[in-house]
Amino acid sequence: MRDTLDFLLHDWLRTATLLQRPRFADHTAETFAQVLDTCERIAREKFAPFNRLADTQEPHFDGERVHLPRATHEALAAYVESGMLAAAQDYEFGGMQLPCVIEMAANAFFSRASVAMGGYAMLTSGNASLLMAHGTPLQREVFAKNEFAGRWFGTMCLSEPQAGSSLSDIATRAVPDGEGHEADPLGPRYRLRGNKMWISGGEHEITENIVHLVLAKIPGPDGKPIAGTKGISLFIVPKKLVNTKGELTGERNDVALAGLNHKLGYRGTTNTLLNFGEGRFPVRGEAGAIGYMVGQPGEGLRCMFHMMNEARIGVGLGAVMLGMAGYEASLAYARQRSQGRPITGAGKDATQPPVPLVEHADVKRMLLAQKAYAEGGLALALYCARLVDELHTGDEAARAEAGLLLEVLTPIAKSWPSEWCLEANSLAIQVLGGYGYTRDFPVEQYWRDNRLNMIHEGTHGIQGLDLLGRKVVMKGGEGLRLLALRVADTAQRAGQVEGLAEHANALSGALQKLGAATKAAWATGVPEEALANATPYLQAFGHVVLAWLWLDVALAAEESEAHAALKPGKRAALRYFYAFELPKIDAWLGPVARREPLLREMQDAWF
Amino acid sequence: MRDTLDFLLHDWLRTATLLQRPRFADHTAETFAQVLDTCERIAREKFAPFNRLADTQEPHFDGERVHLPRATHEALAAYVESGMLAAAQDYEFGGMQLPCVIEMAANAFFSRASVAMGGYAMLTSGNASLLMAHGTPLQREVFAKNEFAGRWFGTMCLSEPQAGSSLSDIATRAVPDGEGHEADPLGPRYRLRGNKMWISGGEHEITENIVHLVLAKIPGPDGKPIAGTKGISLFIVPKKLVNTKGELTGERNDVALAGLNHKLGYRGTTNTLLNFGEGRFPVRGEAGAIGYMVGQPGEGLRCMFHMMNEARIGVGLGAVMLGMAGYEASLAYARQRSQGRPITGAGKDATQPPVPLVEHADVKRMLLAQKAYAEGGLALALYCARLVDELHTGDEAARAEAGLLLEVLTPIAKSWPSEWCLEANSLAIQVLGGYGYTRDFPVEQYWRDNRLNMIHEGTHGIQGLDLLGRKVVMKGGEGLRLLALRVADTAQRAGQVEGLAEHANALSGALQKLGAATKAAWATGVPEEALANATPYLQAFGHVVLAWLWLDVALAAEESEAHAALKPGKRAALRYFYAFELPKIDAWLGPVARREPLLREMQDAWF
Repeated sequence: MRDTLDFLLHDWLRTATLLQRPRFADHTAETFAQVLDTCERIAREKFAPFNRLADTQEPHFDGERVHLPRATHEALAAYVESGMLAAAQDYEFGGMQLPCVIEMAANAFFSRASVAMGGYAMLTSGNASLLMAHGTPLQREVFAKNEFAGRWFGTMCLSEPQAGSSLSDIATRAVPDGEGHEADPLGPRYRLRGNKMWISGGEHEITENIVHLVLAKIPGPDGKPIAGTKGISLFIVPKKLVNTKGELTGERNDVALAGLNHKLGYRGTTNTLLNFGEGRFPVRGEAGAIGYMVGQPGEGLRCMFHMMNEARIGVGLGAVMLGMAGYEASLAYARQRSQGRPITGAGKDATQPPVPLVEHADVKRMLLAQKAYAEGGLALALYCARLVDELHTGDEAARAEAGLLLEVLTPIAKSWPSEWCLEANSLAIQVLGGYGYTRDFPVEQYWRDNRLNMIHEGTHGIQGLDLLGRKVVMKGGEGLRLLALRVADTAQRAGQVEGLAEHANALSGALQKLGAATKAAWATGVPEEALANATPYLQAFGHVVLAWLWLDVALAAEESEAHAALKPGKRAALRYFYAFELPKIDAWLGPVARREPLLREMQDAWF
Repeated sequence: MRDTLDFLLHDWLRTATLLQRPRFADHTAETFAQVLDTCERIAREKFAPFNRLADTQEPHFDGERVHLPRATHEALAAYVESGMLAAAQDYEFGGMQLPCVIEMAANAFFSRASVAMGGYAMLTSGNASLLMAHGTPLQREVFAKNEFAGRWFGTMCLSEPQAGSSLSDIATRAVPDGEGHEADPLGPRYRLRGNKMWISGGEHEITENIVHLVLAKIPGPDGKPIAGTKGISLFIVPKKLVNTKGELTGERNDVALAGLNHKLGYRGTTNTLLNFGEGRFPVRGEAGAIGYMVGQPGEGLRCMFHMMNEARIGVGLGAVMLGMAGYEASLAYARQRSQGRPITGAGKDATQPPVPLVEHADVKRMLLAQKAYAEGGLALALYCARLVDELHTGDEAARAEAGLLLEVLTPIAKSWPSEWCLEANSLAIQVLGGYGYTRDFPVEQYWRDNRLNMIHEGTHGIQGLDLLGRKVVMKGGEGLRLLALRVADTAQRAGQVEGLAEHANALSGALQKLGAATKAAWATGVPEEALANATPYLQAFGHVVLAWLWLDVALAAEESEAHAALKPGKRAALRYFYAFELPKIDAWLGPVARREPLLREMQDAWF
C-alpha cells in the first residue's frame, strides 16, 4: 500500500505544493515522509499484532471498572508519544502543523492495523479540534490541550437510547447550575441529566480523565425543551472535574457507565451507555452531571457538525483501510495457495500440477474488485482531505470552491467505502474459501469490523437524504456544478490519451445521466417524491465519483516517473471499474429518474 | 411466513396433484399440513430459543471429547423423534413417503430457527439417501436404516486441507484390507489413510456412532493414484465398527479428531479436521481406518454428486431461511421502534411525534428487498424441490424434463440465496441500526451464519463455471431451451393480466438478453474466453430466474382465493424486483457478452 499512498500524495495530489503555504513552511517532503514512516512502524509494531486480541479479549465491565487488554494501553501510549493526536494543530498547542491530507494518510496505517484500537485516538482528536473551533480560550487551554497531549481522551455524546438518527428527539436536559453559573471561568455551568447511547470510548482507564462532549436541551421559560434540533446545546462534561489549571480537583462527576454494548465487531473500542446526572456519583452535594457550555445556546448541533466533514471522511477512510487490509491478506493468500488448474483451450489437464489461486480468472476478479474498491476509496478520502486543506489554507476562491465540493463529496466519502470496502472484505473471505470463514485468518474480523461503518456517524440512508435533499440542491446546485466541471476536465484530458479515450467517453455519459436523474428527481419540487429513492441515488453518485477518480488517478499514473511500476495495476483497476462497476449506475438511477413511487406507496400491512 | 409457505405449496405449486401418484396415495392435504405443523412447533420450541446459545457455547474439544450444549442434544432428539430424517423414504425403511417439496418445506422451519443446530440432521439424511441410491442391500440395512432412525448420524468427507474446490487433488488413499477383503458382507474392505478438512458433524456424542462417507483414491498397479477425479472411490467409514446386524462390535475405528475449526458463524455445527488411519486408534492390530466401498471403484464422485442437486438446493434453502429470519426480525423491529418523521411536501415537522421506522421510504426499501430476496428464494427452492419430485415420480417425459431443468436451476438455487439472502441479513442489521450491530439482537448472527453459504457445497465461482461451462451447453443447450419455454409461458400468461403486462415485457426482454449473452460467450467456442466472466453470468442468470418466479408467483396470487390477503404484498415485491433488481442484469451481462478479456489478461505482478 505504501507505494500507492506515496504515489497518490505526491504524483496525484501534488502535496509538495502545500509546502509553499506559510502554515506548512517549516515542512519538507522529507518531514511528510518521516511522519508516514513513523506511523507505519508504530502501527506495524504496536497495533497490528494485537488486532485479534482486541477482538477476543473484548472490554468487560466488572461493575466498577472497565478492563481492556494491556496491548491496547501500550498501543495508545505509543500513539500519544508519536504526537499524532495534535498532528494538524498549531505549534503553540503542541501540534505539528501538518496538512490534513498528511495527517489522514498517516492515520490510515492505524486503521489498517487495528481500526478498533485506533478509535480512541480519532475520537479524541476530533473532540479537541471541535473545542479549538468553538471553545473559549480557557476551554481550549484546559481541555483541548490536554487531549492533544494524550493526557485525557475525549468522546462525542450525541445519540440516546430512543434517539439515534433523530437527534431532534434527544431528551437529555441541561439546567443552570445555581447562582453564578454564568460566570464559571470554564464556561457557563449547567447540570445535565439523561442517557447517552453508543458512546465509543465512553469508559476506560487508558487516560486519567475522559472529556465528554454532550448534546443536551436547555428548557425554555415554560420549562419545556424547544422542539427540533434548534433547542440543542453543547457541553463539556468531564468524567472527573478539573480546575482552570487543568488539574483534577479530586471530584468525580456524576457520569456513570450503565453498561457496555456487545458488538459484532469493532470490539477493541469500548462502546457504552452512559448515565448523566442520575445521582450515582453526586457532586458538590447533589445529583446532576456538571457541564460547561461550548458556544451559544441552541448552537450545539451546528458546532458538532462543524467537525462532521472530517469525522465522516475519517469513517470512510477507516472503512477503506479495512478493505485494504483484506485485499492485502487475500492477495498474499492467493499467491501462496495452490488449487486447481487453469481453464485452457483444451479444458483442464489433471496431470498438471495445481496453480496458485491468483491464476484463476474468478480469483483475479475478486482481487481486482478489492483493489478497485480499496485503492479507489483511498483516493477519495485523500482527495477530500486535500480539499479540507484548501478550505483551511487556500485563497478565498479556493476556500469557497473546496467548501462546496466537500459538502457534496462528504456523503460519498463516508458511504461509498462503507458499502464497497465491506463488499471487498466479503470477497477477501471468498478468496480464502473455508479458511476465510475461520477465525484463524484475519479477514472475517475485517468484515465484522467494517459492518459498523454504514451505521455510525450517520447511516447510509441519512447520507442519501443529505446528498440528494441538501447537498446537490444547496446554493442553486453550485456544488454539483463545480464537481461536474472537475469531472469534465478529467474526461477532457483523458480523451487525449491512448487507451483512456473510451473511458473518458463513458465517464462523460455517466455524468450526464447523473445530472439528468438529479433534475428529474426534483422535477416536481416535492421532497417526498425526490427523496424516496435517495439511497440508490447515493449509490449511483458514488460510483460516478469513483469512476472519475479512477480515471484521474490513471492519468497521473501515465505521467508518473517515480511510480512507473504502478501504471499497469492502475490501468487494470481502471478497466475493471469501467467494465464491471460503472454500468451498475443505470439500475440505480432508473427509479430515481422516474420518481418510482413504490417506496411511498408501500403499506405496512403488505409486508 | 407460514401463510406464504402454504400459498406457494398449494396455490402456486399445486402440491395436491401429487396425491394422485401411487407413492403418495396414503397422504392427504391434511397429512402434509400436519407435518408442517409439527416441524414448525418443534423448531419454535426446541431450536429457536437456543440458537444464540449454540453460537456462544461453541463446541469445544478437550483432547478426548467434543462438548456441545445440552440444548443441541435435546433439539436433535426431538427432530429424530419427529421421523423427519426419513421423511421422503419408503414406509418399509421407516419413512413417510413424503414428497421432496413437503420435506424441504418442513425442514425450512428448522433452518429458520437454528440453521447450525439443524445441520447434523440434513447431513445425516443426505448421507443415508446416498446409500439408498448406491449402497448394497446390506449397506442400506446396516447403515442407512440406522441413520434414518437417528441412531447414528452421518457426514460427507470430501475436502482435504490441500484440496478444497479441487477434488481431483485429494490425497487420501485406500488400499485393500488384506486377504478376503473383497468378500466382506458390508462391502469390499479397504484401509484408508489421509486427512479430511471442513467435515461438518465430524465429531460429537449426540449419537452412539457416526457414519462417514469418504472419498479416497485406490492406487493403481504402479502404486500411484490415478490423476483427476476418475480415480476417486467412495467408502463407508464408521467411527465405531459394526457387524452385519448393525450392532457395535466394540472396536473403535482409526478415525481421530485432529481439531475443531473455529468459525465466523454456523457454530452450532461442529466442523472438523479428521485424521483417517494415522494409527491413533489402531484397529484389528494395525493402523488404517477400515472402510467399505460403495458402488464401483472410480465411481466415487459420481455417487457423491448423485445427491448434489438436493444438497445444493438444501444449502440454498438454508440461506433463504436465514434471510427470512432476518426479514421477520427487522420487520417486527421496524413496526415497534419509532424514530424520526416522514418527509412530506412541507419537509419535516419536529413538533409531531416520531413515527415507526416502517413508515420511512428507505426502511420500506430495505424491508421490500428482504421480502423479495427471502420469499423469492423460498419460491426458487420449492420449485426445484417440486422438480425433484417430478424426477422421482413423474412420467417418463416429465422426468426427462425435470432432470434437465434441475441441472440448469441447481447452481442458481444454491448460489442466488447465498448471495442475496446474505444481503438481506445485512439490510436487517441496517434496519435495526446500532442495535442490529449488537449481539443483543439476532440479526448479526444470521449474517455471520449465512456467510458460509457462498463457500460450502461448491463456491460461488464453482457454481458459475458449472452453469456456464456445463449446464447451459449440455445436450445442445436443451436445458436452457426448456427453461426459456417456461419463462415465455409465464410472460405470455402475465401479458394478459392488468398491471402485469409491463413486467411480462421486461421479463421477455431479460430472457432475450440472457440468451444472447450465452451465445456470445460461447461464440468463439474457447472455454477460457467464455468462462472468464462466469460469475457475473451466474448473477444475471439468477436475477432473470427470480424475475420469472416472482411474476409466476404474482400470477398465482391474482387467482388465489384462499390467500387473497397476500396479493398486495406479492404485487409489491414483484414491483420492487422489476424496478430495483432486474435492471442490474445489464451490468453483469455486458462483460459476458463481449467476452471481456481483462480477467484473462490480468497479471499477478499488477496487483
